[in-house]
Amino acid sequence: MPTSSQASAPSSAIISVGIVGASGYSGEELVRLLARHPHARLEWVTSRTLAGQKLVDVMPQYAGLIDQETAFSPSDPKALAQSDLDLVFLALPHGVASEYARPLVAAGKRVIDLSADYRLQSAATYATFYGQPHPDVQLLEKSAYVIPEIHTSGWQSCPLIACPGCYPTSILTPLYPLLNQGIIAKEHIVINSCSGVSGAGKKVAQTFLYCERNESAMAYGMPQHRHLSEIEEQLSTAAGEPIIVQFNPHLSPMKRGIATTITVAAQEKSIDRLYQVWQHAYGDRRFVHILPSGQFPDTADTVGTNRIDMSAVYDARTENFVITSAEDNLLKGASGQAVQIMNLWFGFDEAAGLF
Amino acid sequence: MPTSSQASAPSSAIISVGIVGASGYSGEELVRLLARHPHARLEWVTSRTLAGQKLVDVMPQYAGLIDQETAFSPSDPKALAQSDLDLVFLALPHGVASEYARPLVAAGKRVIDLSADYRLQSAATYATFYGQPHPDVQLLEKSAYVIPEIHTSGWQSCPLIACPGCYPTSILTPLYPLLNQGIIAKEHIVINSCSGVSGAGKKVAQTFLYCERNESAMAYGMPQHRHLSEIEEQLSTAAGEPIIVQFNPHLSPMKRGIATTITVAAQEKSIDRLYQVWQHAYGDRRFVHILPSGQFPDTADTVGTNRIDMSAVYDARTENFVITSAEDNLLKGASGQAVQIMNLWFGFDEAAGLF
Amino acid sequence: MPTSSQASAPSSAIISVGIVGASGYSGEELVRLLARHPHARLEWVTSRTLAGQKLVDVMPQYAGLIDQETAFSPSDPKALAQSDLDLVFLALPHGVASEYARPLVAAGKRVIDLSADYRLQSAATYATFYGQPHPDVQLLEKSAYVIPEIHTSGWQSCPLIACPGCYPTSILTPLYPLLNQGIIAKEHIVINSCSGVSGAGKKVAQTFLYCERNESAMAYGMPQHRHLSEIEEQLSTAAGEPIIVQFNPHLSPMKRGIATTITVAAQEKSIDRLYQVWQHAYGDRRFVHILPSGQFPDTADTVGTNRIDMSAVYDARTENFVITSAEDNLLKGASGQAVQIMNLWFGFDEAAGLF
Amino acid sequence: MPTSSQASAPSSAIISVGIVGASGYSGEELVRLLARHPHARLEWVTSRTLAGQKLVDVMPQYAGLIDQETAFSPSDPKALAQSDLDLVFLALPHGVASEYARPLVAAGKRVIDLSADYRLQSAATYATFYGQPHPDVQLLEKSAYVIPEIHTSGWQSCPLIACPGCYPTSILTPLYPLLNQGIIAKEHIVINSCSGVSGAGKKVAQTFLYCERNESAMAYGMPQHRHLSEIEEQLSTAAGEPIIVQFNPHLSPMKRGIATTITVAAQEKSIDRLYQVWQHAYGDRRFVHILPSGQFPDTADTVGTNRIDMSAVYDARTENFVITSAEDNLLKGASGQAVQIMNLWFGFDEAAGLF
Repeated sequence: MPTSSQASAPSSAIISVGIVGASGYSGEELVRLLARHPHARLEWVTSRTLAGQKLVDVMPQYAGLIDQETAFSPSDPKALAQSDLDLVFLALPHGVASEYARPLVAAGKRVIDLSADYRLQSAATYATFYGQPHPDVQLLEKSAYVIPEIHTSGWQSCPLIACPGCYPTSILTPLYPLLNQGIIAKEHIVINSCSGVSGAGKKVAQTFLYCERNESAMAYGMPQHRHLSEIEEQLSTAAGEPIIVQFNPHLSPMKRGIATTITVAAQEKSIDRLYQVWQHAYGDRRFVHILPSGQFPDTADTVGTNRIDMSAVYDARTENFVITSAEDNLLKGASGQAVQIMNLWFGFDEAAGLF
Repeated sequence: MPTSSQASAPSSAIISVGIVGASGYSGEELVRLLARHPHARLEWVTSRTLAGQKLVDVMPQYAGLIDQETAFSPSDPKALAQSDLDLVFLALPHGVASEYARPLVAAGKRVIDLSADYRLQSAATYATFYGQPHPDVQLLEKSAYVIPEIHTSGWQSCPLIACPGCYPTSILTPLYPLLNQGIIAKEHIVINSCSGVSGAGKKVAQTFLYCERNESAMAYGMPQHRHLSEIEEQLSTAAGEPIIVQFNPHLSPMKRGIATTITVAAQEKSIDRLYQVWQHAYGDRRFVHILPSGQFPDTADTVGTNRIDMSAVYDARTENFVITSAEDNLLKGASGQAVQIMNLWFGFDEAAGLF
Repeated sequence: MPTSSQASAPSSAIISVGIVGASGYSGEELVRLLARHPHARLEWVTSRTLAGQKLVDVMPQYAGLIDQETAFSPSDPKALAQSDLDLVFLALPHGVASEYARPLVAAGKRVIDLSADYRLQSAATYATFYGQPHPDVQLLEKSAYVIPEIHTSGWQSCPLIACPGCYPTSILTPLYPLLNQGIIAKEHIVINSCSGVSGAGKKVAQTFLYCERNESAMAYGMPQHRHLSEIEEQLSTAAGEPIIVQFNPHLSPMKRGIATTITVAAQEKSIDRLYQVWQHAYGDRRFVHILPSGQFPDTADTVGTNRIDMSAVYDARTENFVITSAEDNLLKGASGQAVQIMNLWFGFDEAAGLF
Repeated sequence: MPTSSQASAPSSAIISVGIVGASGYSGEELVRLLARHPHARLEWVTSRTLAGQKLVDVMPQYAGLIDQETAFSPSDPKALAQSDLDLVFLALPHGVASEYARPLVAAGKRVIDLSADYRLQSAATYATFYGQPHPDVQLLEKSAYVIPEIHTSGWQSCPLIACPGCYPTSILTPLYPLLNQGIIAKEHIVINSCSGVSGAGKKVAQTFLYCERNESAMAYGMPQHRHLSEIEEQLSTAAGEPIIVQFNPHLSPMKRGIATTITVAAQEKSIDRLYQVWQHAYGDRRFVHILPSGQFPDTADTVGTNRIDMSAVYDARTENFVITSAEDNLLKGASGQAVQIMNLWFGFDEAAGLF
């Protein structure tokens, strides 16, 4: 639900929106969410590879929802800049998003970017983790990184909002207030996440074939997954000092979902205090569900929703908290969160079109 | 491969074996492994619930392998004790196994117990973790806990061998020599494991229905899973001092397999040293496969095998090692390991009947 | 979209609805659809086994959607009859539904029954297939069986609508107009369907455990599945003479979805004619998606939707049509269709709350 | 078990075998079966794409089974012809296999071909179904198509044996003797099969990605799947007249397995007669398991085995038999059957290396 600082739009308000790069799984989810959104008219859906094809032919799962004749447009930054769109979602690879973001912002459009291009405050960290200089430092400085439940204010006047990564959302939502309030230690934070295969996108590679991933659990990409950069930058902000964490991502044999388990030393050795901090931070948020200690979030309960579920236990033997969360990586971890940001940015009900 | 202290049996040797409690998934695997074993004659297969039924009717997957007329016997300790069996496998719940172990050992049978009843040296720890006094302290003291690659000698003259749990095997195999050789720190050991659903056995409960577990990843049973007791007892032996670890088990949407990921501070900050220790401990073992650093074990590669695969990376940012392993929870994590123990105990080729 | 014979309700209309027997998978879907429906206020959710428990505790997947304090009521026919509900959905086993239907109809409530109790016109056929006399012949005669795309009129004044079974919907939608128009032969109709495991409901039995159904495809329940009775009764109506079919149901290793494949001799040997008949019957229906010949419906495209997808090929070698359909067994095959019926019955937009 | 016409080899006999084209799923299974076979020494494993790489690096699932240093050889027909191999398995695409078969046969090697190149007696049918002239009519005439339980004699002196396709094995095994004995009608045979995704091989295409096939059941490739050609040719032989069938293949969300369901009019309306014919044909075969009428074969029970399970029911309403079978498409449907053929051809125990 919108915080008091936000103007609320009339319930009949409609904005024009576009999606650039709608061929992946996040793009598909955006199409669905915006096609049925009460306050959005989805006017442009672009794709370099699919331009000219009808959406329903490529995404038959949306027959009946999307007009049969709607086709993909080419991904042309100029045309988009000259359009009457109020808001453009970028669902593009990192490095490519900035090519669109610059002219769109210059033309006065609001932009929600699902790539990594504007997620980091530090261009140097970007260069380290993404292996190339940051493509657009100027706009970076005017952009904001927004998990709506954490970043509740100060971003509404930015021209571009960076939508966080799937793993970071599952990690920062539970950890941010705990670090911020000194409930947990700043060292020895160990994060293990299990992601569904859609986290890898629609990449056509042998390793993502059904017969390779089915019935297969495994770690990958350690020790320096790219999402680590935004996780640590945000946690450092929360803690007021540099935070280094161990982040161990895994693939699970399922299409969607991220289950995250965080082991961290308790600073205040009280599970009640931890829950108080969470309750204070998130007690009134519709998209955070705090489960009682001893119940564990299940990705299956979050699939198809924009919700993150979380809980924690205190282990008296180790004096650690073990914190668990679950979310749908394509919704709260990507496109659902992007629409949630849109809702807040334009003064709609935070949950509009998300249930 | 047998250590030098073991006499080796003639290649034509045949022993008589029985399985008590063959109705679960581990029991099924034992039936398969022993039915096709070149040195074993599977003479008794008992089950309280299935007595009188034909094996092939209950386990149609073994048609052609098992004689059509073979039926389950009742689980009668006295009859088993009076039989001419050389070896009895107990695939029973904890607490129940000891009712069979005592009379069988008294009658001079060798026993391999897949339950938890004889896994702990400390009866007090058993009472803490299993919520009941240890049922048979006398035999406990004469029993041995055996992961053949770790416990290479000293157990062959015991009357009963306790076959380790599935999680402990996946954890102890990589960690034991590292702790023993001082390569890793003794504190802040964090273990996350993802298990296939067969880890829960054939328990008929709503939570294990297909529709509940499919496409679902989640933590469970924290902070004090029962397997923790044997993990810590063994690690403490390896380290020569008490070791406490954080153990976070998870369910993954697959039938079989355990993927374990261990985060531990590097004492010697050299991945090469770690690999040397592993190579020294396991370089000549057929059922341990050490993958190069940067490749990650995949449960799918171990399903159907008695092998544990493992690898490690060094994270210079955190100064941690991240150690990963994978195994088939029903084979190397249970019945395969039990047969491996049998092979060594009776002087057969270690791998007999296991490929 | 409503046919012209139906009055349309004002867009602000709200009705009071209740669900009796909400503990199964169909019940869960009904809860979700009605909780987010723009024209329904879900006032009663009953369950004999769950009475007193909070919905969100039992269905954590709906946190944020359902008020945290809402609890299951006992399933009391009298209390329901005396309530101010406009409409009651019955999601109960056959034989039980009629115990509620009678008093509710007597009290003037409209009832949508998802069980089999009022699906057959012939009480004798009910007795044959369900192994017991029909419990309520009087109400049966006043009830209607409604697939909205087939039964477009004549049912709106009935007090009770029987919502068709999952298999029948996937079969009747493609076949009904073809038989009716004489495009296909009336003999040698062979129907094979593959259903997700949720088709068996939440029944706690060994055969529905994850480890039993995972990676398993198999036929079951032949030769006389109960759904055959409503399939044949409806097809006989379509054909104007008794129709007998071969119906072969299968389980597939997935939670949701039914894929149906029908082999039938072509009476008119023209795939174009077949498509013309379909186009005429369904061309303007939002929940039927007709794919071009040579493309095959995929259950995955229908999961989460209230749509049925279908296509057909003509095989010149055999002179058969092979007709394929796909649907979500819990939505178009159950709860989605029930809500679609509600929408039409009360004059709402047919698709209200269904995208 | 070998028929009486076959000489039996001494139990210590060892032959030298090679596999050409071992990079696919069938090739992988062949590697496993031959590496552990008591009478085979796997001397050559070739692959055009993997030449020079070590087998264990490409197939880590076989660590411990295969010597670490064994590498893929190039696929060189001349070198293979000059080798001392006794038998060569071809696991190649159709059209390519013949390039190897010709020189190998000319050099006196025995060849078992898993491709379609030598499965059809009619070169014309090959041209119709495979869209190209048959590449090697001369050798075709000297080759035999062998399902060992059907083709029990007459093929042992051929230089090349064509190993049947996965679907055909699941269909011909139950149908062949029934047609041959006149138990079933020759018209209106309708066959529906559900295959695991490995049936498509290791083809890297979007449609075979995990996220596309998971939770998805669908028909494909109708109305003229290539396997139809060998199905009909064999059934015509069985019947003594041309047989045309409807064959509807489907994909199921699983890695392995084929479940086939056949609807056919009963000529003799007696399920007992049908079972008598099966019993007579297969009662003494280890790799055919005939389940009682009313029990249905489950692919999960056959995965990892070389067995085909089958059963049938008689439907008095339709006067049809509904016949069901299940097999592992990579074993009884491909590589297991190839090894079974090898065993019989060389006089080994039929089941050697197959349990």
